[in-house]
Amino acid sequence: MNEKIKVGIVGYGNIGRGAELAVLQSEDMELVGVFTRRDPSSVKTVTPGIKVYSLSDAASMKDKVDVMILCSGSATDLPEMGPELAAMFNTVDSFDTHARIPEYFAAMDKAAKESGKLALISIGWDPGLFSLNRLYGEAFLPQGSHYTFWGCGVSQGHSDALRRIPGVKNAIQYTVPVESAMEAVRSGSEPELTTREKHTRECYVVAEEGADKAEIERQIKTMPNYFSDYDTTVTFITEEELKRDHSKMPHGGFVIRTGKTNHGANSHVMEFSLKLDSNAEFTASVLVSYARAIARLAKKGETGARTIFDIAPALLSTKSPEELRASLL
Amino acid sequence: MNEKIKVGIVGYGNIGRGAELAVLQSEDMELVGVFTRRDPSSVKTVTPGIKVYSLSDAASMKDKVDVMILCSGSATDLPEMGPELAAMFNTVDSFDTHARIPEYFAAMDKAAKESGKLALISIGWDPGLFSLNRLYGEAFLPQGSHYTFWGCGVSQGHSDALRRIPGVKNAIQYTVPVESAMEAVRSGSEPELTTREKHTRECYVVAEEGADKAEIERQIKTMPNYFSDYDTTVTFITEEELKRDHSKMPHGGFVIRTGKTNHGANSHVMEFSLKLDSNAEFTASVLVSYARAIARLAKKGETGARTIFDIAPALLSTKSPEELRASLL
Repeated sequence: MNEKIKVGIVGYGNIGRGAELAVLQSEDMELVGVFTRRDPSSVKTVTPGIKVYSLSDAASMKDKVDVMILCSGSATDLPEMGPELAAMFNTVDSFDTHARIPEYFAAMDKAAKESGKLALISIGWDPGLFSLNRLYGEAFLPQGSHYTFWGCGVSQGHSDALRRIPGVKNAIQYTVPVESAMEAVRSGSEPELTTREKHTRECYVVAEEGADKAEIERQIKTMPNYFSDYDTTVTFITEEELKRDHSKMPHGGFVIRTGKTNHGANSHVMEFSLKLDSNAEFTASVLVSYARAIARLAKKGETGARTIFDIAPALLSTKSPEELRASLL
Repeated sequence: MNEKIKVGIVGYGNIGRGAELAVLQSEDMELVGVFTRRDPSSVKTVTPGIKVYSLSDAASMKDKVDVMILCSGSATDLPEMGPELAAMFNTVDSFDTHARIPEYFAAMDKAAKESGKLALISIGWDPGLFSLNRLYGEAFLPQGSHYTFWGCGVSQGHSDALRRIPGVKNAIQYTVPVESAMEAVRSGSEPELTTREKHTRECYVVAEEGADKAEIERQIKTMPNYFSDYDTTVTFITEEELKRDHSKMPHGGFVIRTGKTNHGANSHVMEFSLKLDSNAEFTASVLVSYARAIARLAKKGETGARTIFDIAPALLSTKSPEELRASLL
């Protein structure tokens, strides 16, 4: 029997909680504990009895953790904490600011090479599984185009933007892919689609008492970057309706590749989709599988930064290569 | 500029022809030629000017080919030719007799280890991309079930079975997934589905003049293994209709994984699907991408047999790791 992979979780928001659940259901893993910048005594874990450490004590646990799963935010936390932690631990994170990936990769690669550790960045579903499917599509159908649609799902950033509008008490925003645009893509016609043609935005808003709803709606629909380029609907609801009907955080989406072979004679469609009740829990499950892969590669002595593109699929599975060939191939 | 990957194609049926097209559109590859057991002068390649060699001359080309793509049949050809070729070349094949994969893997592994070459087996879409998606699904949603549906597409084996019935002049068989079964799967209810509930079989039959059509239909519908466990429809058509409406070889299918997180509180659906105008050309395109991966791994000195589970996605792409991170992640 192999030794269990000792996993630590840094950050305890929705993804950290999901990672706790996923590690505990993995028979080949042992959860060392949760590491937080908050007062550890203030953190109540989902599962009773999980140890909570101060992040400032992490250095003393260097030899007790095989992989740290970094469940912190991409905007400000990971760019700073990531390299610090990669200097001590093998890490897996879900850094998702697409435009800053090259820069973050370089910082993590430097830190991990110096420490002799591995740092796997940008794991989840986008970036993550969707990226993988974009790569597979381009590799197998080089004469073609790929399209990514998101939703139906909650966008945190857009929900936050709604809540910053004066008179808005609470709000949630759903990104919805336009079915007719997806059908056009699946037809293989490789359409050029504008932002407006690909997604609509549905806003459910709780207004403060006496607020000017028409003005709120106007501000939403004209907000640059967030809403003005989309067909946006605004529905005012009560706080009770928000709690009752909109408390889950579903998400998902589609990566569609269409392409041709034989000098254009034959068309092909590859499609990958996700429909998730809980964005955070699924993302965490993906992180935990990739933590398994990183623990295995670290044992072989590999160092430096990696992305999902570098990880052979077999490393994600608890099954042996023989079992995989016999049962899943 | 890197040297081009020198590729040979063994076997020149539909997949071999598709591989020729895919290699020629890959800028990083050079097609050395086609190797055949037939008289080379009798083989007319799709693209004029492709060299055709006798397979018996392959040994003399050992140093002129980086990867051989084996486009021969799984029933009798590959079990014999595969190990012989792996004793001389790096190989990629589409061995697809699921039940015999462990045995074939062992034979290829032995041959390739002895020759210091790499042998990648069972590449295509099932086994192949569908296998990958079964693995990903199981890894990310360990509490769940996966389902594979095939079609709508032409089954060669079933079409051959129809043609062996007395009085049948020509015939084609489509495997069709049952939409209501797929919807039940997508609901996350993890239904137990019988063979009959998952797929129907549609047969288009050209009868010989004066043949007893009722008897043909009875023989089809009661044929064990092939049709008796399915809801099968038989439609008699003319030879002209067969040629006009059924000359393409489309195929495709769906791998659906559903699973739960948070002790069953949240459901998730992962779905991968293919819709292919030409089964053979798409399969060949996948083989060619994996030939690229094998050429790269062989350069690193790896030897022995591999499956799709062992290949890191980045190896499939013509893009550099930096380009991949910037453009697809």
